[in-house]
Amino acid sequence: MSAKTMKAIFLKSYPEGLPTPELFEQREIDVRSIADGEVLLRTVWMSVDPYMRGRMNPEIKSYIPAFSLDGPLDGGAVSEVVESKNDAFAQGDYVVGFQGGWKEYSISNGGGFQKVDPQLAPLSAYLGVLGMPGMTAWAGLNEILKPKEGETLFVSGAAGAVGSLVCQLGKLKGCRVIASAGSPEKCEWLVKEGGADVTLNYKDYKNARELTKALAEAAPNGVDCYFENVGGMHLEAALNCIAFGGRIALCGMISQYNNTALEPGPSNMVNMIGRGVMAQGFIVSNYMHLAMQFATEVAPLLAAGKIKFRESVYEGLDKAPEAFLGLFKGDNFGKAVVRVGPDRL
Amino acid sequence: MSAKTMKAIFLKSYPEGLPTPELFEQREIDVRSIADGEVLLRTVWMSVDPYMRGRMNPEIKSYIPAFSLDGPLDGGAVSEVVESKNDAFAQGDYVVGFQGGWKEYSISNGGGFQKVDPQLAPLSAYLGVLGMPGMTAWAGLNEILKPKEGETLFVSGAAGAVGSLVCQLGKLKGCRVIASAGSPEKCEWLVKEGGADVTLNYKDYKNARELTKALAEAAPNGVDCYFENVGGMHLEAALNCIAFGGRIALCGMISQYNNTALEPGPSNMVNMIGRGVMAQGFIVSNYMHLAMQFATEVAPLLAAGKIKFRESVYEGLDKAPEAFLGLFKGDNFGKAVVRVGPDRL
Repeated sequence: MSAKTMKAIFLKSYPEGLPTPELFEQREIDVRSIADGEVLLRTVWMSVDPYMRGRMNPEIKSYIPAFSLDGPLDGGAVSEVVESKNDAFAQGDYVVGFQGGWKEYSISNGGGFQKVDPQLAPLSAYLGVLGMPGMTAWAGLNEILKPKEGETLFVSGAAGAVGSLVCQLGKLKGCRVIASAGSPEKCEWLVKEGGADVTLNYKDYKNARELTKALAEAAPNGVDCYFENVGGMHLEAALNCIAFGGRIALCGMISQYNNTALEPGPSNMVNMIGRGVMAQGFIVSNYMHLAMQFATEVAPLLAAGKIKFRESVYEGLDKAPEAFLGLFKGDNFGKAVVRVGPDRL
Repeated sequence: MSAKTMKAIFLKSYPEGLPTPELFEQREIDVRSIADGEVLLRTVWMSVDPYMRGRMNPEIKSYIPAFSLDGPLDGGAVSEVVESKNDAFAQGDYVVGFQGGWKEYSISNGGGFQKVDPQLAPLSAYLGVLGMPGMTAWAGLNEILKPKEGETLFVSGAAGAVGSLVCQLGKLKGCRVIASAGSPEKCEWLVKEGGADVTLNYKDYKNARELTKALAEAAPNGVDCYFENVGGMHLEAALNCIAFGGRIALCGMISQYNNTALEPGPSNMVNMIGRGVMAQGFIVSNYMHLAMQFATEVAPLLAAGKIKFRESVYEGLDKAPEAFLGLFKGDNFGKAVVRVGPDRL
């Protein structure tokens, strides 16, 4: 089978500051025939992730190039193989990879994809707890923070796809978990299901000084490990409360991504010297050699119900911009995913 | 022998901002008799170091307590044993330790001191290249930055006691060394003797943007390793030019120590994420278990003339405040030391 045309979402121009819906446009484009060695993939679920904001800045020097305005946007997706001229993939297989997002179909030579088992977990989980965000959480915790039992772990963006898994894995390791999120509902879930001992609704605090006071009360012995998803006042407060020998995993700074001018950074980095603190910035692809170890550890925890996850599901490709913009407004609770098509046609 | 009284320097009150000479006062105080197990030490050389500014802030949470106003100041010194009731030390021995500075005599139970050999190197070198600053440079370079041959190493405060050894050890490891210092004379020495390939006189650059431009030209492939002694615009420029996989040793931020209000930090810490950068704050005492390894490696390099060092010598205890204040004005070139008494009486 093959589709002659498909819907795909383009970026009309690069955003300045917070992106708006008008920047996105859905267009109808051709789907070419596949060649030998290629597969035609039908997108079932697509992911929206904060890192995509970085790809909307053509001047940034980062690990992946900026999005082109000449083709559709791209990103992670779970897809069904609908036509295969590649022996490694059969029609009906499901795959996950960093391709297929923001469009109904994509064509691949099979590189960069993993087959996934739809019996083991819902397909969308391969974009979240069993996918890139899950691997990000696991790697930042285990390869950078390396928390010891009894240590205090502070997590910002704790109700997000990455943060919520960091909290739960940290709790399973015996940490005291302090979770920051942006609504009473998120904080309630984090305590009931998400592994948090204490939550901070950051919207209750106007500035780094106020957040520092709350964090210091929540962490009387200091913060041994800080998993950074947010930046800004969260980083400043964490550096005020960091313990001697503290570790910081710099995973994201979502509060900064839409700044049009550079915002000053933490005024208290000097604390890192006297307290012997380590901060490691990372992206998940630095740790892909550990993907098997991650899956081996996390999949059974998920199957046994020892790890919970939340999703914000958006129905239909045309909702993808809304899902993406929701990342910066705190609209999403858990992993934001877009259902582009049914599991089976 | 014993001294009934001695001169010692007191801090009259804690400074706000840049300390002034009026804050210091020399007083005549008693020297008590020593008890069994103790030694009486005559201070020969004393050290002034940037970390002492932190001890002049009674509210700081750091690895050592603030100085008391009730007793004399203290700090690292090379001393002669003039009376011993401790079998481990004989009259005439020379020792180095974190005690004896800012005064003519001190009494110790022998803990925290190392005997030093006056034949191997000038006594003052045990406060610099063979002492705490040397160990700091060696540990930050070898235990944190771990530079590989051919990598680019950027060092701020490069003409100082720590920075000048970082440059030379980095050069011996095959790095391309970029050194920042504050005068043409310092830059000239760094190129001729101090291991630098390129120097930047930071006083030529008004802000982080200008320093970034100069550093980017000096490091066309990016900065793999940054040894941080200064903070402020140096850190921002280094984070702009940092290479993928870059490492930062946070040793000092001398530009910040006299701030009366917190100065905003670098606006570009987000670069650490996309480029996978690690920053480790440290103090030398974290690495004291490697002191033998340091001495074994650096002493022969010094003896062979493969490492040079500079000293700014101040004559007489009463010059100690001036030596200390010079640290923040860029007055000193190499290690600042104060000769409190002659090598031998």
